[in-house]
Amino acid sequence: MAKEITPRSTDYSQWYLDIVKKAGLADNSAVRGCMVIKPYGYAIWEKMRDALDREFKRTGHVNAYFPLFIPKSFLSREAEHVEGFAKECAVVTHHRLKADPSGNGLIVDPEAKLEEELIVRPTSETIIWSTYKDWIQSYRDLPLLINQWANVVRWEMRTRPFLRTTEFLWQEGHTAHATREEAIKEAEMIHDIYADFAETWMAMPVVKGVKTANERFAGAEETYTIEALMQDGKSLQAGTSHFLGQNFARAFDVTFLNESNQQELVWATSWGVSTRLIGGLIMTHSDDEGLVLPPKLAPTQVVIIPVPKPSAVIDETATRIQKALEDRGISVLYDTDEKSRPGFKYAEYEMRGVPVRIAIGQRDLENGQAEVARRDTREKEFISLEGIERYVEQLLDDIQQNLLLKALRYRQENTCEANDMTTFTELIDKQGGFVSAHWDGTTETELKIKEMTKATIRCIPLDQKAETGACILTGKPSKGRVLFAKAY
Amino acid sequence: MAKEITPRSTDYSQWYLDIVKKAGLADNSAVRGCMVIKPYGYAIWEKMRDALDREFKRTGHVNAYFPLFIPKSFLSREAEHVEGFAKECAVVTHHRLKADPSGNGLIVDPEAKLEEELIVRPTSETIIWSTYKDWIQSYRDLPLLINQWANVVRWEMRTRPFLRTTEFLWQEGHTAHATREEAIKEAEMIHDIYADFAETWMAMPVVKGVKTANERFAGAEETYTIEALMQDGKSLQAGTSHFLGQNFARAFDVTFLNESNQQELVWATSWGVSTRLIGGLIMTHSDDEGLVLPPKLAPTQVVIIPVPKPSAVIDETATRIQKALEDRGISVLYDTDEKSRPGFKYAEYEMRGVPVRIAIGQRDLENGQAEVARRDTREKEFISLEGIERYVEQLLDDIQQNLLLKALRYRQENTCEANDMTTFTELIDKQGGFVSAHWDGTTETELKIKEMTKATIRCIPLDQKAETGACILTGKPSKGRVLFAKAY
Repeated sequence: MAKEITPRSTDYSQWYLDIVKKAGLADNSAVRGCMVIKPYGYAIWEKMRDALDREFKRTGHVNAYFPLFIPKSFLSREAEHVEGFAKECAVVTHHRLKADPSGNGLIVDPEAKLEEELIVRPTSETIIWSTYKDWIQSYRDLPLLINQWANVVRWEMRTRPFLRTTEFLWQEGHTAHATREEAIKEAEMIHDIYADFAETWMAMPVVKGVKTANERFAGAEETYTIEALMQDGKSLQAGTSHFLGQNFARAFDVTFLNESNQQELVWATSWGVSTRLIGGLIMTHSDDEGLVLPPKLAPTQVVIIPVPKPSAVIDETATRIQKALEDRGISVLYDTDEKSRPGFKYAEYEMRGVPVRIAIGQRDLENGQAEVARRDTREKEFISLEGIERYVEQLLDDIQQNLLLKALRYRQENTCEANDMTTFTELIDKQGGFVSAHWDGTTETELKIKEMTKATIRCIPLDQKAETGACILTGKPSKGRVLFAKAY
Repeated sequence: MAKEITPRSTDYSQWYLDIVKKAGLADNSAVRGCMVIKPYGYAIWEKMRDALDREFKRTGHVNAYFPLFIPKSFLSREAEHVEGFAKECAVVTHHRLKADPSGNGLIVDPEAKLEEELIVRPTSETIIWSTYKDWIQSYRDLPLLINQWANVVRWEMRTRPFLRTTEFLWQEGHTAHATREEAIKEAEMIHDIYADFAETWMAMPVVKGVKTANERFAGAEETYTIEALMQDGKSLQAGTSHFLGQNFARAFDVTFLNESNQQELVWATSWGVSTRLIGGLIMTHSDDEGLVLPPKLAPTQVVIIPVPKPSAVIDETATRIQKALEDRGISVLYDTDEKSRPGFKYAEYEMRGVPVRIAIGQRDLENGQAEVARRDTREKEFISLEGIERYVEQLLDDIQQNLLLKALRYRQENTCEANDMTTFTELIDKQGGFVSAHWDGTTETELKIKEMTKATIRCIPLDQKAETGACILTGKPSKGRVLFAKAY
């Protein structure tokens, strides 16, 4: 199996597609740009969803569900928003098919044309704010802290599984507040939750920052982002949280009576992460042998393999270990399939990124031990059966930590400073990674640098040092460095 | 609040809409026939989803996700299937909007017309079986036991929140098997899970049966159904499980190599329940004061109300009770809002169907007691604070049981036998409910009875007694009674 994966050094892009396919995460579908998320990929998404959902609820949010369809006219209400989404949306124009009179299957029934076309939601600000108008009258109705788990559609021209697909799954939070300060605080809190989730659960270190005006969400006043560095030196925007000001309240006329009995426009945020995170997970940790998963998100954390095949004594020990691990909340698979040989199974579970493998043979039992292999470093060790569950529990923690540290080290080694365009261009071209550089703050310069190097400003880091300098392109004054990279 | 609900006796249909609105379950949206599921309604759906998902996983199923869009040509592949869905589907024809040259907002860009139109899935058999073709080669790949939680769209002409909406949420299981027997066993097992869920969680008794050929799912060989009797004497089809034979395997050419090395068509099932269940929940238990929820599905199971308002001593007792209940896995809200008076709160929580209310006043504390009210019977009782958590825990169980028994009694009182058309018509017209009657087994008779009385055969009950008789319409011989009712 593993031999069939294209090595990263040969073709990173093909390596990624090989992992997605051979680890059983997703498949292409018959519909252009839409993927099928296979059970193993979906199980990872469920774990992500559950962890995030707990955090949202812990911080006072509730889930709801808004319609898939958005009347065309709604999109136009917020000028920048429509600019951002009108060019890539699926449009429903009819509500019925009928038999082709010429006998050739089905045709769209021209008599079933909709009066107003419906857009399959690319994001739900417009339909939600049209609803909030009915829900918000007074400051007592605020804040509204609502999230939804949903599918959305953006008609992308170039797609890649998880990273950019026509349809994807995500959560989108949409909150309404009485004050500017409270809305900003909300957007920042969610930004923190995203960063913490990326590091704690995905073992994926992220840079926290804000987007430049040019890279902001269509309709936002401020976009907070988490940016993660992939193994090929490109940055992945992994989650964004937007302070929307009063833009959507204005567009949909959502006002409230404040405590001083005056009508005011409501303040808004929106925020989302998507199945794109699975792409980030793959590209942060996986290797030429297959998927590598952080234990906290692995659907199966430990696999036990009888060598060369099951037997009464091996079964007895294996199920005892399984039970002891499951009692500790660890998910375990005991693979008793006799059709495959151990070597095949080893490769298979390495491909699927199962963090820990325990192999038990007859002689191991006689020696009171088992072979424990960790997926991240591929190291193997014989461990005494006595207390093996404690060892494995600790090992899972170690793997989780090690993956984060390794990714942090990679990022550190691939983050450089550039003080002139020559150095900058060379770094971006040869090495990739994050390049920290001075910029004069204008969209014009930002776009020119992008045109010249394909690098974009990923963010203005929140921990930006106050450091005066000169823009690498124009030489104009800058107050601090921003982070450039090529991006997914 | 409660006074604003239309009594059932005045207008059952309006009563239903009042409950949906005033209990905060759902709202109409700007899109025809699509509802917004509000946080309280969605919280009930989450509880249903979690309970069902656990059962599906316990019985070996895994979740996955398939595309929202189905190529038009796929729908035509299975003849009966297309017949069932082509007339009520949302059709995507374009993938871009552009500014109207005449300056009037947005228009569909004619240059972005799709080569083949896409249907927003009304159900996913076709897209899934087109995928299974790639996943299934040999008997070793079987069974495939896959479920998805998703939104679907059926362009219904007359909609009602939860019961019949253009878009709804559901789960759809799609399984593939090597033998006919195994597929039938799967469809029956799911049928059992649905019936058990309805009775155990929803306290909604159901009749288990199979559909007549005429009422079967489009493309099925057998449709198993659970039918529940609503308070207005109409039946609600609450969940269906289909044995699909080899119809979809044939349509999408899905074969496998069996153990004797021969190519065979794969056997299929599909099964689903939807947000319609929430409509069933409402119409099984609720009353003229508002929603009534079985404790197992209530987002808030117990509300504690300080009378007339919070105080240090009341807070201390209330939070102690809250903690003791939460330790038992019971969800509790302590309502310390001082803007509303207790009477208002009582009505509000009755409206929202919170199963148990505990009211604590200063004098109660002095007497070492609190007033406990149950929503189902609206009875109140003073209970000693000592051990009140045990009392409430038991009370929640009692309420769950009582709701089921009450609904069973109602169904019993509203299930009759009819042996001739006159009695039958009178029963259906005057009383409603289930009418058990002999039928000659033909679709022709079934349709004629429907035309005459609006009653349809809800199911051929699984526990049908072998009893020869004469069809109420034609007098032709019948081997057993089937269950008629008007239906949602």
